[in-house]
Amino acid sequence: MTPSTHSFDARLLRKCLSALGNPPIRLVLANRAEAAPPGARPVATVFLPDRRALSSLLLHPEMAFCDGYSDGTIRVEGDLVALLDVVSRSMQHAHAGEWYLKLVSRWLNLSQNNSLRGSAKNIHRHYDLDVNFYRLWLDAQLVYTCAYFPSPDASLEEAQIAKMDHVCRKIQLQPGERVVEAGCGWGALAIHMAKHYGANVRAFNVSKEQIAFARRRAAREGLSHQVEFILDDYRNISGSFDAFVSVGMLEHVGTAHYAELAAAIHRAIGDSGRGLLHFIGRNFDRPLSPWIRKHIFPGAHAPVLSAVMKMFEPFDASVLDVENLRFHYAKTLEHWLARFERARDRVAAMFDEEFVRMWRLYLAGSEAAFRVGDLQLFQIVFAGSQCQHIPWTRAYLYEEERAHEKLSAEKETKWMHATSSS
Amino acid sequence: MTPSTHSFDARLLRKCLSALGNPPIRLVLANRAEAAPPGARPVATVFLPDRRALSSLLLHPEMAFCDGYSDGTIRVEGDLVALLDVVSRSMQHAHAGEWYLKLVSRWLNLSQNNSLRGSAKNIHRHYDLDVNFYRLWLDAQLVYTCAYFPSPDASLEEAQIAKMDHVCRKIQLQPGERVVEAGCGWGALAIHMAKHYGANVRAFNVSKEQIAFARRRAAREGLSHQVEFILDDYRNISGSFDAFVSVGMLEHVGTAHYAELAAAIHRAIGDSGRGLLHFIGRNFDRPLSPWIRKHIFPGAHAPVLSAVMKMFEPFDASVLDVENLRFHYAKTLEHWLARFERARDRVAAMFDEEFVRMWRLYLAGSEAAFRVGDLQLFQIVFAGSQCQHIPWTRAYLYEEERAHEKLSAEKETKWMHATSSS
Repeated sequence: MTPSTHSFDARLLRKCLSALGNPPIRLVLANRAEAAPPGARPVATVFLPDRRALSSLLLHPEMAFCDGYSDGTIRVEGDLVALLDVVSRSMQHAHAGEWYLKLVSRWLNLSQNNSLRGSAKNIHRHYDLDVNFYRLWLDAQLVYTCAYFPSPDASLEEAQIAKMDHVCRKIQLQPGERVVEAGCGWGALAIHMAKHYGANVRAFNVSKEQIAFARRRAAREGLSHQVEFILDDYRNISGSFDAFVSVGMLEHVGTAHYAELAAAIHRAIGDSGRGLLHFIGRNFDRPLSPWIRKHIFPGAHAPVLSAVMKMFEPFDASVLDVENLRFHYAKTLEHWLARFERARDRVAAMFDEEFVRMWRLYLAGSEAAFRVGDLQLFQIVFAGSQCQHIPWTRAYLYEEERAHEKLSAEKETKWMHATSSS
Repeated sequence: MTPSTHSFDARLLRKCLSALGNPPIRLVLANRAEAAPPGARPVATVFLPDRRALSSLLLHPEMAFCDGYSDGTIRVEGDLVALLDVVSRSMQHAHAGEWYLKLVSRWLNLSQNNSLRGSAKNIHRHYDLDVNFYRLWLDAQLVYTCAYFPSPDASLEEAQIAKMDHVCRKIQLQPGERVVEAGCGWGALAIHMAKHYGANVRAFNVSKEQIAFARRRAAREGLSHQVEFILDDYRNISGSFDAFVSVGMLEHVGTAHYAELAAAIHRAIGDSGRGLLHFIGRNFDRPLSPWIRKHIFPGAHAPVLSAVMKMFEPFDASVLDVENLRFHYAKTLEHWLARFERARDRVAAMFDEEFVRMWRLYLAGSEAAFRVGDLQLFQIVFAGSQCQHIPWTRAYLYEEERAHEKLSAEKETKWMHATSSS
């Protein structure tokens, strides 16, 4: 290697940094050529194997980085979340590789469409993975959506329970009411609504593994008479209900199918019911990362609020409340990622090292995206035009939250007393 | 009059009721022919002078009723709000007179456009009326927008103060911060923000009378150094601010000008500010009542949420919170209407009987519209992409509300003690 090759590589590295909007990171090539923007201290170092990797990074930064990180040819030293955070901040207003994103997005839209059959296939790829894998890093109840942390130092377990209560309070769930849930995961919320709010729940999901698991769980809890888990698509929801709930499914519906979802909701709750949609959204419309759609969530899309609001217009339904919980998803992902890292050897044994890197990247990238604001998390409460369940103010949500926390704290104290006296 | 004319009239009256969707009201002609739907007890009786009035009612029910009620040819016996409530419920799914509404709407859109000059003219017609008229039925601070009633039995005065505090808490207003207000009425909120939150406020309004009044008020309160009232359009907002607030102006902007308003907001608060929009909205898109636009609010439009959400998308701003307060506006209007009725003789002396009837109809019709859900009231909190003022949860809003109420209750108790001991 001559000094001039070295300086040529350094120039390429600087060009690459500049295409990324000059984030405070250090790029290093195998021949030790390196570059970092002047000023700010780099939050992490990215090691590239060769010029080919460097030129891929120049052409389509996101895909090239994610693929290289996954197959192990690109290495990162330092905090991965911090790296993805600064890069996504600096890239928000850079436009590197946009043509490539558009091209890949168009191809993915075609190959991963969310028809009845397409949805089943897309969902299968992610949610039918062995539940023992998810057990390694989710909370005890296996809730695989954004938690609600009444305070940032709540545990993940507490925050997932608080989220389920927040949802039930928002729709003012009453004993004996009938609820339909679209996209029920492993059944935690459906069971929570039955067990703690006395609701009769019919929960839909197209993931076979999740439905089978949820049914066993309901049976074990003696709730099979109160919670019915149905292996079917939201488009086939049947029955008439007081309330509709969907937590973390809208991302898999696709804007082309929102009218079908809206019609299914309206059929289910008519004009007198109410409901809640909880989903990952965005400030402005663009496709999700093609790497995520290719390897993690086929067919997924995070919509803007205006697209979701339009769902309610044909049915004269009212939007009662919208809450943005993006920092709660960043915190949730921080917990998941920490648990995932602690379990990384077991994950590697179940799958392989590439799988570990891919899922680490997905979790870290999502945490960064919620921190930066690239992704948002919305909860929308809505009500049919004749709904009689409209709270006067939202104060009761927080009174019940406080009462519940006080109760939990008292239980905790009693438990501690019992332990110390034994 | 022969029995057959009478039965012909009764048939016409029944046809008219049926075109209105058969609301539980009684229609009576001067010749004593009458009709009421079978079953439900009529909530009120409408007296029509002649067949001409009856046929107008058949052709374009809303305009004909409102014009006839205003000029005194159509009389109502019974509760006017209840009458308008049942008629607007039954008409939600009837479509009588739609062609007429469309035609008149098109004409009003042209003649009442919200250009710079058009807006000034439209606003002048309503808001430049003698402040002494508004004093007769608004609260002591002259807040002419939906109040926030922490509990339904709060007084109007308390509820308007609670609303201003709710707004200030939602944007987490801090001492020394700069706030711009678009559409400031007689200045109550701007002065509240300065006086109770230590903010520096620049408030815009195109109503000459309101600005003159607000300036005198700030001077009287010794706040002229902290609150600047500017007679100008929102499109001409200049300066750089921490927060943007607009309460009850969006209804006068018109969807054609939302992009201009959004650009003005973005210029004012950049990417790091936050703001609040409070406005009358609707579940689905359609023009406001032409009678209201012709006689009460020229150029007004109540938008759907999706149209307002789109305003934020080009600037990567996040929607943090949406609250629907429609029942609070119904309650506010109930207070206004009751005060208006108590002051009706003085209103008649200032204007005339027709004015009294028109404004009674406008207040009663608005109350009914919010009760029925024909109109909604939304508060949206938003933040720029780099905003650092994002609360962890919304619990603080209600803790401060409770603390404030407790404080007020204590003051009240002290005051009662002082009174009883004196």
